[in-house]
Amino acid sequence: MNDTICALATAPGGALGIIRISGAQSLEILSRIFSKDLTQAPANTIHYGHIVATTPVGSATTPAGFPAGPIDEVLVSVFRAPHSYTGEDSAEISCHGSRYILNKVLELLVQNGCRMANPGEYTMRAYLNGKMDLSQAEAVADLIASSNQATHQLAMSQLRGGISTQLSSLREQLLKLTSLLELELDFSDHEDLEFADRTELTDIANKINKHITQLSNSFEVGQAIKQGIPVAIIGKTNVGKSTLLNRLLREDRAIVSDIHGTTRDTIEDTIDLQGVTFRFIDTAGIRQTTDQVEQIGIERTFAAIDKARIVIWIVDKEPTQEELAKINKLTENKQLIIVRNKIDKAESESFKIVKITLIEIYAKHNQHIDQLEQAIYQAANIPALSDSDIIVTNARHHEALCRAQTHLQRVIDGLHQQVSGDLLSEDLRLTLDTLAEITGGQITTNEVLGNIFTHFCVGK
Amino acid sequence: MNDTICALATAPGGALGIIRISGAQSLEILSRIFSKDLTQAPANTIHYGHIVATTPVGSATTPAGFPAGPIDEVLVSVFRAPHSYTGEDSAEISCHGSRYILNKVLELLVQNGCRMANPGEYTMRAYLNGKMDLSQAEAVADLIASSNQATHQLAMSQLRGGISTQLSSLREQLLKLTSLLELELDFSDHEDLEFADRTELTDIANKINKHITQLSNSFEVGQAIKQGIPVAIIGKTNVGKSTLLNRLLREDRAIVSDIHGTTRDTIEDTIDLQGVTFRFIDTAGIRQTTDQVEQIGIERTFAAIDKARIVIWIVDKEPTQEELAKINKLTENKQLIIVRNKIDKAESESFKIVKITLIEIYAKHNQHIDQLEQAIYQAANIPALSDSDIIVTNARHHEALCRAQTHLQRVIDGLHQQVSGDLLSEDLRLTLDTLAEITGGQITTNEVLGNIFTHFCVGK
Repeated sequence: MNDTICALATAPGGALGIIRISGAQSLEILSRIFSKDLTQAPANTIHYGHIVATTPVGSATTPAGFPAGPIDEVLVSVFRAPHSYTGEDSAEISCHGSRYILNKVLELLVQNGCRMANPGEYTMRAYLNGKMDLSQAEAVADLIASSNQATHQLAMSQLRGGISTQLSSLREQLLKLTSLLELELDFSDHEDLEFADRTELTDIANKINKHITQLSNSFEVGQAIKQGIPVAIIGKTNVGKSTLLNRLLREDRAIVSDIHGTTRDTIEDTIDLQGVTFRFIDTAGIRQTTDQVEQIGIERTFAAIDKARIVIWIVDKEPTQEELAKINKLTENKQLIIVRNKIDKAESESFKIVKITLIEIYAKHNQHIDQLEQAIYQAANIPALSDSDIIVTNARHHEALCRAQTHLQRVIDGLHQQVSGDLLSEDLRLTLDTLAEITGGQITTNEVLGNIFTHFCVGK
Repeated sequence: MNDTICALATAPGGALGIIRISGAQSLEILSRIFSKDLTQAPANTIHYGHIVATTPVGSATTPAGFPAGPIDEVLVSVFRAPHSYTGEDSAEISCHGSRYILNKVLELLVQNGCRMANPGEYTMRAYLNGKMDLSQAEAVADLIASSNQATHQLAMSQLRGGISTQLSSLREQLLKLTSLLELELDFSDHEDLEFADRTELTDIANKINKHITQLSNSFEVGQAIKQGIPVAIIGKTNVGKSTLLNRLLREDRAIVSDIHGTTRDTIEDTIDLQGVTFRFIDTAGIRQTTDQVEQIGIERTFAAIDKARIVIWIVDKEPTQEELAKINKLTENKQLIIVRNKIDKAESESFKIVKITLIEIYAKHNQHIDQLEQAIYQAANIPALSDSDIIVTNARHHEALCRAQTHLQRVIDGLHQQVSGDLLSEDLRLTLDTLAEITGGQITTNEVLGNIFTHFCVGK
């Protein structure tokens, strides 16, 4: 924490590259390789100048034939503690995006006293300097990784202290419970008063428990949103699975390549519906294996169904009651959508399918695909989010919430079983401490922090 | 030029992404989607705030379930005309490097009145607003593409007006020549004075011609430096070509992957020696074909030798006079280095090879590879550069220099052949105009500018 760190904060290869410096010596070190003295530069100002090579002590790095000269014309942004991202004095150098230049500037910074930053070290310093709590720090990594509206919104909500607010409200209620329990202890001499208000205590504890459970349960949908909601498309050969998949995938790809104008990432078999990513699991495998499948077309796709939250069963003629029973059994805990393809070829009357979403499409002619998309989105059962709703997306938070639940359940059980207040107090304290882990109130061990920040990208 | 443009200036995928806006409406448009009003923000200041989604007229883009909210917490840098890169009012938004966020911010800017910038449009505006001349604008693209010290230095020199200074000196001399010629015309009534000072005119013209030729000739080495100096490694099977190549390549790769800590570009078969790139041409082909070659091991490698500036002929026993004669003929206009590999196995006495660089190595044991590298660098014959030396790297400049030379040669010939001054004046004017093309003094047609800037990256 006492040294000054530097790192490239942008991906290499663009027109510009940003190098970040943070630490007490930032402006002193930078001034050694910059054409102007920045040590007295005011906060939040921008300075034009040159990065110039200094000859490091004891070595001549300039190869024969090429005189030392300015490395780049740059803009330097100056930030002053505590009003910077890290809370320390810091600077950002906006260079031309040449790999040679970016390497050279980093090299010069290191030669003059900087250390190359570890992944996430800027954000870790921001946390350690009290600029954000731990859940907010984790949200920064999620925000950078966010690739659609849903993941973006969950990260933004967490960054803006969404989960922290909920936890602080839980903390208040737990402290209230603690003080009521202490009150009970104070009056424990009076035998007639002893258990008088345990109903109120139980009510509060149940309310807190409900809230924690709600947060903890939101992790499932949070994970699904973060990783993409897994969808399996199953059905017999030649019912049009591939055509349907292509129809579903096409639109999304067009959008991606349109906006960017750059080489797009390989996004295989995912679509975004209303800001949520749906991921078609192992569809290549399904396409292959179903070729050999006779009956209902799903015997070989158990694994795919097992991983899915949503199963799309595509048929081109009315399924038998036996087939329906079989598919219902296979998709017991899933959302099942039956898709009737090639609707103009099929008999005119409707299928007699009840209690299952049935969508009629003609994939080849792109008919009613929008209705199917709507059905898929609804099947995902994403809760309507308001600003105050919180969805837990972080496995560390979920784990802490589950542990907090266990501790709190012991309090609730204890209240029922007339366990004495001082024993309950201990469990209450554990509940409080466990919840505090999420925002980092109780943990600052290097190991835990290391685990969290090692997954960050360098430069953040 | 009247509209306001926006583009992503960094490569997607980093911790940060920078979006650039330039044009008269920059701060007005940005203020519509920023949490603060920036229309009165002073030059060179930095502002923290949020990018917020505006609902565009006539459409509801917010999907069901997700409330509109802030898109990102950002820093905005404000620049004011004429003290900005483009010379216009402009701003840079430093966002979190999420693809979703960057797309969304660009989308919001376009919805609120910006246009997506064309490749190189910022630099083109800088040129059109007189912030730099055309050769400097071209240097910006070269600087971004520069990947080693030599290409970096050539681009920096050009960016800092290196070639412009030379051209301005040439222009002065040409104008002097023109005025002397006009003086001659004024006195042309006096028959005895007519050709009195044509010696001085010829001297000046020859001096200018020498200077232009020097610049024009520097293009060959400029190109070699820019594209990497082509080197062919040839030799019989089993003399150790692959081992030598691996030895030469290894060091450089290690350096590249060390400094970055990121996925490195595939840099196949190039090495940097003292800041200059050497490119091993078509070595895969050589490795394959030479397997079947018996004699001297070079029969199938004519093409590779033809493309090379430097030929490394690797041998493990003394070549015969016949072989030497053959290789000398094949590499007539090349730099030939004979490498004697496996020096411990070879006989102890020296080869009787004269006038050709002979290096003795043991590639497998990494012995004397440094001596070979030194020999390769020397064979490249890179001139020792001082700050005042200019190497032309741009094909457009070279082409203009060649045309200027043609015009000037007609002046020189005319002076010899006693052609009348008014005819020479015309050729002198053409020489001046042609040189002026390089810095853009005479050309601003959209077609020419389009050709130049279309090769830039977006965002610069």
